[in-house]
Amino acid sequence: MNQAAYVAVDWGTSSFRLWLVDRAGNVLGERRSHEGMMAAAKPGFPAVLQSHLEAVGAAPGLPVIICGMAGARQGWVEAGYVDTPAPLASILKRAVPVPGQDRDIRILPGIAQRDAKAPDVMRGEETQLLGAVGMDAAGEAIVCMPGTHSKWVMTNGGTVERFATFMTGELFDAVSQHTILSHAVAGADETQDIDAFKSAVMAAFEAPAFAANLLFQVRSGQLIYGGTPSSAREKISGTLIGLELAAGLGRGTSKSGITLIASGRLQMLYRLAFETTAVPVRTIGAEDAVRRGLSMAAQSIWSL
Amino acid sequence: MNQAAYVAVDWGTSSFRLWLVDRAGNVLGERRSHEGMMAAAKPGFPAVLQSHLEAVGAAPGLPVIICGMAGARQGWVEAGYVDTPAPLASILKRAVPVPGQDRDIRILPGIAQRDAKAPDVMRGEETQLLGAVGMDAAGEAIVCMPGTHSKWVMTNGGTVERFATFMTGELFDAVSQHTILSHAVAGADETQDIDAFKSAVMAAFEAPAFAANLLFQVRSGQLIYGGTPSSAREKISGTLIGLELAAGLGRGTSKSGITLIASGRLQMLYRLAFETTAVPVRTIGAEDAVRRGLSMAAQSIWSL
Repeated sequence: MNQAAYVAVDWGTSSFRLWLVDRAGNVLGERRSHEGMMAAAKPGFPAVLQSHLEAVGAAPGLPVIICGMAGARQGWVEAGYVDTPAPLASILKRAVPVPGQDRDIRILPGIAQRDAKAPDVMRGEETQLLGAVGMDAAGEAIVCMPGTHSKWVMTNGGTVERFATFMTGELFDAVSQHTILSHAVAGADETQDIDAFKSAVMAAFEAPAFAANLLFQVRSGQLIYGGTPSSAREKISGTLIGLELAAGLGRGTSKSGITLIASGRLQMLYRLAFETTAVPVRTIGAEDAVRRGLSMAAQSIWSL
Repeated sequence: MNQAAYVAVDWGTSSFRLWLVDRAGNVLGERRSHEGMMAAAKPGFPAVLQSHLEAVGAAPGLPVIICGMAGARQGWVEAGYVDTPAPLASILKRAVPVPGQDRDIRILPGIAQRDAKAPDVMRGEETQLLGAVGMDAAGEAIVCMPGTHSKWVMTNGGTVERFATFMTGELFDAVSQHTILSHAVAGADETQDIDAFKSAVMAAFEAPAFAANLLFQVRSGQLIYGGTPSSAREKISGTLIGLELAAGLGRGTSKSGITLIASGRLQMLYRLAFETTAVPVRTIGAEDAVRRGLSMAAQSIWSL
């Protein structure tokens, strides 16, 4: 069996993922739980981490590299932000050691865009970017990272030039659960209505100003013409993703199209949306990207 | 004292308003409660109406004209819809009598836009329109009726040609209460930040596709630059109203500008928003409009 070289942790707002990794980057052990920043505050970050380290049998001296909300002000130790334009290489240089620990534990900083006209922050996505784009990438890339708070990032030669966060995922939840549309989607099952999704994407993409009207049409359309709860859900989702794409693609794309970092259902939906708007996409799994980014950080920090 | 000629009722989803009115349209008595369609379902619509009729001392034979959600499928008696293009005069002709009552009670229908590309419905607003625009108005008007579900209506010669509903008010509630922005507005007081509101209106009006990003900036801006909860609330409100105006004004305005039917805080905010986008506005109070519309219906139906 290969020997573990370090532990990599993606510590988000509501999720915790840990990998035991060897020198070559192979995963020897893995843990996932819902002990994200919110849940970890009570038992304490050290106790949560320790329990998972024991569960994978991590040796006492093994170093730990962490990204995500554990580095937020409300997290374990504040890891600050690197300001844009932010070379991805500077992320690892600015990793913050957690004081008073038996082992070497470091938390990667986020990235801040200190622009009064478009203030923005990311924390965790910078590590995905590092893994997906690399430190010494040549040329420009536009990267779309969908989620609760979708990020659109312009990188150039391994540097984050600009980025914008869209509340798309959170708007989907709030609109489906806390407005009149909750009646329209009540009882939705796993059935997909790809046509409903695609036409909603196109409608919002072509007339983004009408987003709040297109959402209401989910209800009035059901009232007048009928339609399933699942198809109503796809229309809400398509409208919000189409709105996001109208902004993200509004200033054109690079020749190589878009780099999409996403997994599972989100990857499927955004691929469909980009297909609908005829934009070429290169896809990278979100988890692969963050693990690769954490590995690059570990290898650089501890000269593995 | 003048003699009461009829009773007018505006029966919404969550509110109930009743006026005792004389032949000349003067208000002799008034009642308001939260017994809207939702709350009235349990005690029953007849019992709720009866209690308020007694409270204003309405004589046994006095007729009652009702508009709003009491005419919805989940209401008292379904009053259907008049389809667009809908002459406002046809609203009163299609009033539905409530069967089995001691007095003459009629409920006004809503308006439906049976257009597969822009299905829409209104119920209650048609009576406000009747009161504000009139049955025999000459020329075109664009009417904005802000609220939980804002309506933008194009009328021509007293006929509703087209309309669109925007979920602006409901989005404001869902976003302020059920997303990460709830932290940004927590503790907001009555302080107004007119500059924050106006610049948010302008930002969303000029770049509506960025709505979901502009909303996130309420948080990231506060994180990076600080700012009060009240100013965060104004930014959310300004972003959503600016998005609505980008659609509503996107196809131009008539020379006479916009007719705004609104009261209270909403009237103030929308007037500011129209001022920001340099659009002339004629304002009519929402309650005046609905009462005038109900009076026109009563006078026509009972030849008063």
